[in-house]
Amino acid sequence: MKHRPVADVAKAGSARQAVAPPERLALGQLNKHLGYFIRRAQIWVFQDFIQALEPMNVRPAQYSVLLIIEANPGRSQAAIGQMLGIERARLARLLHELERRKWVNRRASGSDARSHSLYLTANGRNALAKIKRLAERHEAQLAKFVGRKRHQQLMELLRDFG
Amino acid sequence: MKHRPVADVAKAGSARQAVAPPERLALGQLNKHLGYFIRRAQIWVFQDFIQALEPMNVRPAQYSVLLIIEANPGRSQAAIGQMLGIERARLARLLHELERRKWVNRRASGSDARSHSLYLTANGRNALAKIKRLAERHEAQLAKFVGRKRHQQLMELLRDFG
Repeated sequence: MKHRPVADVAKAGSARQAVAPPERLALGQLNKHLGYFIRRAQIWVFQDFIQALEPMNVRPAQYSVLLIIEANPGRSQAAIGQMLGIERARLARLLHELERRKWVNRRASGSDARSHSLYLTANGRNALAKIKRLAERHEAQLAKFVGRKRHQQLMELLRDFG
Repeated sequence: MKHRPVADVAKAGSARQAVAPPERLALGQLNKHLGYFIRRAQIWVFQDFIQALEPMNVRPAQYSVLLIIEANPGRSQAAIGQMLGIERARLARLLHELERRKWVNRRASGSDARSHSLYLTANGRNALAKIKRLAERHEAQLAKFVGRKRHQQLMELLRDFG
């Protein structure tokens, strides 16, 4: 992994590294835990994603909810929360924000008065088109950074979790 | 991946699955994002870890801080926070909790009156011995669940991140 993605190079050139060179600490037993390395990678990828999506001010969880609504229009909040593992209160806040931005709307479901079906608005579809272009750029940088083969291998190895 | 770890089988048998069978939703474009699969795996592994460590009531971040202090006695809060990517305020709360449990103590550092060096107490070393046994059991279950070869591959592929 020789190349750092553009977003990260910019970050590394600023305050973080200039202030204090990182001390080398021993990993100890952490070195045996897959969870530690998964978590580190997840933080790294999410930070890169957040920077790449900054022009649209979209967080990873918002992006995944928009994509799931796009791919499954009319489904319920409960179904989406269950699929993405987002707890009810957090998803409610997130959807409230997406409604405030006029990207998503809720309609009462015919079959169950208590349940609401979620749809993208025309606005939401336009925004998501731009968001996807930024997300694709992030993914291409990531694949370049980790190497295309490693990117593919990780995708296959991680796909069956959860 | 045919076997679910013990902790997860117990969970699956209770409320979650009994109430509503999960609806199948299309992943859409999420299917192209490594970050999505890393995040899913991270949540899965952390949930399993938290259940496995329940007898000692220890969270993943607490465990990693204890291991880093064990492997690097006398280092500063700043160095540990930087290495683990835990922000200052969150690490302060976490260390406060570990001091309350009398597992960790802080001593003023000779070289810099503002800085404190972190050590495990005798209590902390005893607790960590028990915690490590539970963590090893979690890791062994995880390796069995994903397969030993896949566990090893993931470790190698993810090690260079961050």
